[in-house]
Formats: sequence, structure tokens, C-alpha cells
Amino acid sequence: MKKINTAPISGMQELLPKEQALFDHFKQQIAKTFAINGFLNIETPAIDRTEVLLAKAGGETEKQIYRVFKTAETADDSDQALCFDHTVPLARYLAEHQNQLDFPFRVSQIGRIFRGERAQKGRFREFYQCDIDIIGRSNLPIAYDAEIISTLSTALTCLEIPTFTVRLSNRKLLSGIFASLNLQDKASLVSEILDKSLKVNQSTTKAALAELSLKPDQITVLESLLESKGPFTTAINQLEQLNITHPDFIQGVSELKLVSSLLVASQVNFVIDPSIVRGLDYYTGTVFEIFIDNYQSIGSICSGGRYEHLAEYYTSQPLPGVGGAIGLTRLFYVLNENKLVKSQEIKPVDFAIIPFSQTESIPAIALSRKLQSLGFFTDLIFSDKKLGQRITHAASIAKHLIILGESEVKTGKILVKNLQSGETQPLSEMIKNL
Amino acid sequence: MKKINTAPISGMQELLPKEQALFDHFKQQIAKTFAINGFLNIETPAIDRTEVLLAKAGGETEKQIYRVFKTAETADDSDQALCFDHTVPLARYLAEHQNQLDFPFRVSQIGRIFRGERAQKGRFREFYQCDIDIIGRSNLPIAYDAEIISTLSTALTCLEIPTFTVRLSNRKLLSGIFASLNLQDKASLVSEILDKSLKVNQSTTKAALAELSLKPDQITVLESLLESKGPFTTAINQLEQLNITHPDFIQGVSELKLVSSLLVASQVNFVIDPSIVRGLDYYTGTVFEIFIDNYQSIGSICSGGRYEHLAEYYTSQPLPGVGGAIGLTRLFYVLNENKLVKSQEIKPVDFAIIPFSQTESIPAIALSRKLQSLGFFTDLIFSDKKLGQRITHAASIAKHLIILGESEVKTGKILVKNLQSGETQPLSEMIKNL
Repeated sequence: MKKINTAPISGMQELLPKEQALFDHFKQQIAKTFAINGFLNIETPAIDRTEVLLAKAGGETEKQIYRVFKTAETADDSDQALCFDHTVPLARYLAEHQNQLDFPFRVSQIGRIFRGERAQKGRFREFYQCDIDIIGRSNLPIAYDAEIISTLSTALTCLEIPTFTVRLSNRKLLSGIFASLNLQDKASLVSEILDKSLKVNQSTTKAALAELSLKPDQITVLESLLESKGPFTTAINQLEQLNITHPDFIQGVSELKLVSSLLVASQVNFVIDPSIVRGLDYYTGTVFEIFIDNYQSIGSICSGGRYEHLAEYYTSQPLPGVGGAIGLTRLFYVLNENKLVKSQEIKPVDFAIIPFSQTESIPAIALSRKLQSLGFFTDLIFSDKKLGQRITHAASIAKHLIILGESEVKTGKILVKNLQSGETQPLSEMIKNL
Repeated sequence: MKKINTAPISGMQELLPKEQALFDHFKQQIAKTFAINGFLNIETPAIDRTEVLLAKAGGETEKQIYRVFKTAETADDSDQALCFDHTVPLARYLAEHQNQLDFPFRVSQIGRIFRGERAQKGRFREFYQCDIDIIGRSNLPIAYDAEIISTLSTALTCLEIPTFTVRLSNRKLLSGIFASLNLQDKASLVSEILDKSLKVNQSTTKAALAELSLKPDQITVLESLLESKGPFTTAINQLEQLNITHPDFIQGVSELKLVSSLLVASQVNFVIDPSIVRGLDYYTGTVFEIFIDNYQSIGSICSGGRYEHLAEYYTSQPLPGVGGAIGLTRLFYVLNENKLVKSQEIKPVDFAIIPFSQTESIPAIALSRKLQSLGFFTDLIFSDKKLGQRITHAASIAKHLIILGESEVKTGKILVKNLQSGETQPLSEMIKNL
């Protein structure tokens, strides 16, 4: 019989059990951090109406969306597709359930989303994203912006990745500057250049701005803006020295000050960086991106910001919010690619128990249940192979080995072999010392 | 602006945060039980090639499958669909990665699968299934069958659902009986009648068998088979008294005996019930279904069995296995429908902390971080509303409330209000007594 191609579809992550254990550990650490910071988890369906998903998006997103259809269509079914992010389903969820939710609503979503991107190394078509958002019913204090950043920063710290820095800005700085320089019509082009300035040198940025026919004094102000980066108090001083009097700018600096002071209280490692723009046009205030210090080329590993009108396509209630997300599948991939994950041998099982023959199966089960009741992870390896093969199997999955033969069952004297050190000790002694 | 319909698609579970917390708790309990019993978790992509998914299935499955396509097709893309179970992707995974896996391979899969069923109360188009399987490379001792059943039974016990019973049989009993009664050509029709016998009375079963033109002595044997149910030793005695000498039957009884004796050792609540057939034609030995004792009408809440040729469409390696699954979304739904879930008010947050004014935000953050470092879940409620509204919000999500005003910050004397009892005590005392 011709056998079928069994490779997973390209762009879809499929891990061996030991890699999966590490990935699951990452996911659990993130989930735990979100919960400990008061975020309530929700899960929206992976499939939604295309009308809902594309209410705002269009363009690039529409091209990447996976449409779904049932082979046996029924009349009640609308046009449907796989969710490409957590933000749109959250907006729909909020619109639908707002009267049954308590605001400010701290919400987390950890799950797989789907984008039909062109297959490419490190680009995923199905990937985990870990989102948190805090939503107000009609108003939401700026202090919550710091909660989002601090929670995401704590989650990343729990993953034991190399040191990283939050780069923080506020979109109102830009809107204030654009207004005071009369640059509103070039806002998106200038934003794009500022966004790229972190990756290129100063003269390239200057040249790009000049190409847009900006006047020298406009360029000077924008350059001074970009230079107003670094530690909190220094950067704020520099921003204030720009002497921009537009109320948006003043408001932006004031918000940046408040968020910064709260991040200091939460011991978050951050700098102010006005080149942080974030592409999505729904951000209205705080914006941030997180980079691993010695691996900026990886790109940001986490980002987010403040928005005012998330659910406007679905409800007339304002529902302002602030949120951010860790792209877990991509993060896991780049950490592995750059060997930034401690590649410790994970042994998921504490005790592998081998009943020497079928006669010892029942006492082996009893011993296994006893060890499990003490919280240990166990595996029973029944006899289908030679003892040597069973011991090799035990060594590949477990930290300790117990072989249960006739005499062990009779005397109750059970020995435990440490599969790393090779040392042997009585089980009774080992458990006593724990 | 016309607002979009924001209800989730029918047949898709969408829960409010408190229901979701209970659902997540169920999922975690199951995952923990699987891990403690030595099962290694894997996760296969939600999307696979249609060719892989339909290699065996066809028929009903083909009609229920959700096909997916990208709006912007690229040449490398094959015909794709959403996975309708975990068994087919597991077979593909085993075929693809068999040389990097250790056998016997104890594997768990917990995730969402998709079936385009007609929308109907209690039928889900997207649902969680929690599967475990143990796979041998070419051979797998029968003792592992008991491991699957015992692990699933433990997982269900951890959910604190009402008492349930495992109904256990072995497909070799039937194949032996069909061979010795010369009924092979009516095997599937008779199996179907036996399968339904649990839900109808004895005379209905007898009449149905007679309609197939079975001879009275054939019907007598089948009736005696169905009567051979109940506790382990009684049922085995009755089966042996049928005096069927076909080797399949003898083998079936012997396997049933072994599995039963190991289930006794694991303290699983089970009975032998030869009416358990299981529809799927790939089961070859042990089969089981689990029912809640006083709610048989719900149907089985967990089932599985032994198979010999799981991956035959993908590899020539035999890979025999035994497995079972809990349909978690459906189980959660029927438990709620029948009010079998303790509807305790879940308060996910231990301490809600309210800074009285913006001045207390920083000390509130410091206190929150300190409580988190002790393992507590906290929520900070900043000032956007009146204090009364903030206290109401705290009461809806948290067990305890701390209000941090000027004097609390100055003196360090912090009071904690128990939001259930209304009692107040100093935080220092409360933490000391934990």
C-alpha cells in the first residue's frame, strides 16, 4: 500500500515529547503569572464568522485568513474562518457578554491562532499567543497600563530567558508633535521612519525624513524626540526640554511619568524610547515592546499598548482598554534557534517501576499508587521485552528506577537506583529523607 | 453604524469567566492525573492534510469534516482540514517520529477538535477531548490496558463528579462466539443489537435477534453472554460456564481476567459487561465505557479500548496500542445541565487591593508584589469610580479586601476584610497564622 506523507504541514509547530514538556512548562508559567496578577482566563472559539473577524481588518489580514467550510453545508451556517488573533474575538466577547462581566475586567487568553502566511523559516501559520487585557466600562485609569507591562515582564522572567528590557513610549507624544509641527498629513509616513530608527543609524533616519520634504527645524525636533530615550527621569527631562506645548504632548509626558513611576515600584527593567510606535492604528496612548538585551535582531518578543475603541464595530459602549501579548510559539522557536533555552534533560517521571515478571504486576501497581499518593510521577514498565531493554526505556524517561522481583515483594525491601548517578539506596530511606 | 451579530457560532462553547475557571480546573486536574501516571503530553497541529485525516475514515466523518483554505492560496498547499479527533493525528505523529520515540510510549493529548455536526442542544462542533494512549513498537503487554482504564478513572475521580462505574469487556469474546456459532456474516448486525441491549429490556433484544433469523440455541448463547455481567469473579465464572471452546473466546476471557485483577489492585470501580461493544471497528481486545451511576441516560462519559493497527495507513510498523478519551466539553455540559457540579462561587483572587487615591498607587503595588511573592493571587483596583463601586467590584472577584489610604501607608497598619464573613483583622496577624 502506498503510504501517505506524514510530515506536519509546513509552518505548523510539532514537537517531540521532551521539547513539548518545555513548551508546556513555558505556557503554564505564563498562565500562572497571569492568574496571580488577577487576570481571569477566557477561551473564545477558534472559528468565528468572517463578518466578525474582518469587521475592521481587511487588507493584509484578509489575505492571511483561513476560511473554513463544512463538507455537508447546512442552511444556518454563515461564512466562517479561523481566528487570526485574540483581540477581535475578545472585542466580540465583550460586546456580547458586557452585562455579565465586572469592570475593570482583567482578562487573559492563551491559545492557538491561525494565519495563512507564506511558509518561511520561523514564520508560523498556527501559533500560540498569550494575551492579557484590562478593559474599563467607559473609563480606565492610566495606572492599569503599568499592570499590563509589569505582568508580562514577570511572566517572561519566570521563563528564565536572558535579560530583557521594556521600551516604553506614548502615542500622544507623536500626535502632539505632529500637531505642533503641522505634520498631520505626513503622520503615518513619519511614524514609519521613526519606527525603523532603532534598526538603522541616525543619518539614515535623517535622510529618510529629508526625503519627505520635511523642513530642517521639523527634522531637528524629531531628532531631539528620538534622543529623549533612556532611563525614566533623564528621558522625561529631555522630553520636557523640547518645549512642545500642544496638550496631547503634555498629556503624553504626564502619562509616561505615571506609568514609569509605577513600573519602578514593580521593579520592571525598562527605558523610555519615543521610537516605539507600534504599527496598529488602534493604539492611542501607552505603547511598549520588549527586547532581549543581547539579541535585538530577534525583534520584539512581547508588545502592546492602550486603545480606546476596541469593540466599536460590535457595540456602542466605549470599552477602553490596555493590553499586550507574548507570541509564545515564535518566542520558543527563536530561543531554541539561538540556544537561549537551558537544554537540561527533562525527565518527566520520578520513578519507573519494572515488575520483573507478570507475578509482580499487582504489587508494582500498589507501589505505583502509593508513590503517586505522595505526589510522585510514576511509570510502570510491564514485560514485553528483555529486562535490559526495559531498563534502557526507564533511563530515557525517569529519574529513578525500581525493579520489583519475587524477593523484593516477599521481604518488602525495595531498592531505588538513581539513573543519573547510578547510586542505589533503600526506598524507605529515600522517602524518609524527602 | 449597523452592529454585527456578536453571539458565538452555535455549537461552540463560550463560557463566562467563572464557568471558564471551573472548566480550566477540570482540564488541569485531568492533565495532572495523566502526567502523574507517566503520560507524556504532545500537541499536533489543529490543521492537517485531508488525505491524512480521511485515509481510513470516509462516510460520516467525511461529511462532518471542516475543510480550510487560505484566501491567498500558494502553490505548495495541499487540501487541508481541521482535525476531527486525536487518534488520526497521533497515528500520523507516530509514523513520522517513531525513530525518535521511546516505546512503550505513554502519550496524552488534551485539546480542541472540530466536527461540523448539525447544531443541536448538547452537540458541539468544537470541543475538548482528553486522550491517553500507550503504544508498543511491535508488541504491548495486556497489563497496559488496565493502566489506561485506571488513569482515566483516577482523572474522573479528581473532578469530584458523582460515583461512576467502568463497564469492561473484550472484543475477543464476541469474535469467539460468532465463530463458534457460525455467525460471522451477521457479526456487525448482532453487535449492534448487543450494544443497544443496555438501554432496552431483555425481550426487545431477544425479538431483535430473532428478526435476524437466528436459531433459538444461538439466541440462548447470546442471552447467556449478556447475562454474564457484574462483579469480576462472578462474571468470569459465568463466561467460563458458557463452555465456548473457540480460542478467541478463551483468549478474551484470559485477558479480561488479567485486566480485571489489575483494576482491583488499582481500586477502580468496575463491572464486566459483555454488551460493551464500541462502534469503531478498530478495537481488537479490551473495550470499556464509563457511566455515571445514577445518570446512565447521559450516555458514557469516557471510553476506549485496545487496537492493533492504528497507524497502518501511514507506516508498515505494527504499533499496537490501547487508549481512551474523556470528551471534556460534553462532560462539562451534561454535568452542568444535570446540576452535578458543585456550583460553589469561585473567587479567583485572594486579595483585592484598593489604593484610596492615586497617591497610594505605589505602596499598593509594593504590597501586591509582596503578597504575590507569598503565593497569593492579587488584583489592584485603581481609582476610576467611587469607592463603593470599587468595593462591589472587589467583592465579585476576591476573597479579601485591603483598602490602602494615607494612614495605612503612614502607620503600616493594614486591615484585611474577609468579603464572605465581613470580619476584619490585621494583615500581619493573618499572614502569621497561615
